[in-house]
Amino acid sequence: MSTDGRRATPQARRALVANEILDKAATIFADQGFAGTGIRDIADAMEMSRPAVYHYFETKESLVQELVAGVTGEILQFIIELRADRHLDHREKAHALVEGLVRRVAARPAHMRLLAASERSLPEPIGSTHAEAKRDALVEVRAMIAEGVADGAFRPVDERLAALAILGMCNWVAWWYRADGDIPVEEIGAALADLVLEGLPRRQSRRLADGSIGAAAALLREDLAHLERLIHAREAAPRRKS
Amino acid sequence: MSTDGRRATPQARRALVANEILDKAATIFADQGFAGTGIRDIADAMEMSRPAVYHYFETKESLVQELVAGVTGEILQFIIELRADRHLDHREKAHALVEGLVRRVAARPAHMRLLAASERSLPEPIGSTHAEAKRDALVEVRAMIAEGVADGAFRPVDERLAALAILGMCNWVAWWYRADGDIPVEEIGAALADLVLEGLPRRQSRRLADGSIGAAAALLREDLAHLERLIHAREAAPRRKS
Repeated sequence: MSTDGRRATPQARRALVANEILDKAATIFADQGFAGTGIRDIADAMEMSRPAVYHYFETKESLVQELVAGVTGEILQFIIELRADRHLDHREKAHALVEGLVRRVAARPAHMRLLAASERSLPEPIGSTHAEAKRDALVEVRAMIAEGVADGAFRPVDERLAALAILGMCNWVAWWYRADGDIPVEEIGAALADLVLEGLPRRQSRRLADGSIGAAAALLREDLAHLERLIHAREAAPRRKS
Repeated sequence: MSTDGRRATPQARRALVANEILDKAATIFADQGFAGTGIRDIADAMEMSRPAVYHYFETKESLVQELVAGVTGEILQFIIELRADRHLDHREKAHALVEGLVRRVAARPAHMRLLAASERSLPEPIGSTHAEAKRDALVEVRAMIAEGVADGAFRPVDERLAALAILGMCNWVAWWYRADGDIPVEEIGAALADLVLEGLPRRQSRRLADGSIGAAAALLREDLAHLERLIHAREAAPRRKS
């Protein structure tokens, strides 16, 4: 970061410091609540003077506004664009949804935790903007699932509960993800998407993906073997029991 | 509640008021952080005197300790007992896990949110107790999944990521569950468990749950129909193509 900073343009350097302030502020807000934190606490934690912080964010409110836009606003935008994507089928969209959410949450875990902790005490109109974006995001994810159900790609699940389950699974990443951990964020996203699409249990895939006669015959042999086992069991049982 | 209260024993009445204080305290803590809240704030919100609150909780710390025991401690205990249950198979355990977690989170959403928000600023030794219980709960859920994988009941998933996904899905219920909402908590638990066990996509269930000859024959007829369609398609195609 610092080596990049030396070669960076003044604008890029400014963005870099602004981001550091946002990160630090989010951590402090998350720890002691939004209402109980002042620019002074943030300045102290950054080892900057208050005027230096004001140089980047004129008010605590403008700082919070940028935090909310970077999390809730960014996630809503992603979901809207994904739902409108005509190149992906329902499965691919669900996969991309989980991967994209995990990536965004893992990029700003402290900001996510902050919003979850103190969304009720956000100053207006930031609080309303955040609440609306959250509502809209839920509406979009519900619609994505409902569209998949309508097309027969998904099971007839309760789309609201399924949407909340998926959002929760992804949001919770903010509480356990470590940027310095041993699992790359792409792997986490893929694993979570896989869980949503496949569930936990092992099941023999009975889908004839390749539509071949060979595959159909293999299924047939499996079922025949099963039928034979059942018949043998039935034939053996009465002798023992009656 | 109040009609019960009139007939309740002094002990039950005491528990009732203590619970109300805990609920109110959790809401205030969640809004303004643990460090920034005193017994005075809780007393004011309860419209009680400070001495009256002290009658139930001698210190803020004892109040927080009871909160943590009621959430993290209770959840850990549930998970340990569930994992040890010899009457349930892996699928049933996973189902019971999600249902039980959802029920417990929905019973104390404000307490859950509080712990998620200010676990870093919990006083010692409560903070360490909470952190250990969380770690142990994750260890137990990982083990439940790993045991299911080892027995071939579950797919070979990354058990840590699957455990975190399930815990996150259930924990997040604290952010959207409404006790006065139109969906009973049992239905939420069942829907979330179903998502973990089945995933989102529609698939023909090919499991012979009842082990009957009729079911085996039905599968066989399905495959025969499929084989016939494939054969007809193959027979029709060369005529058009070649």
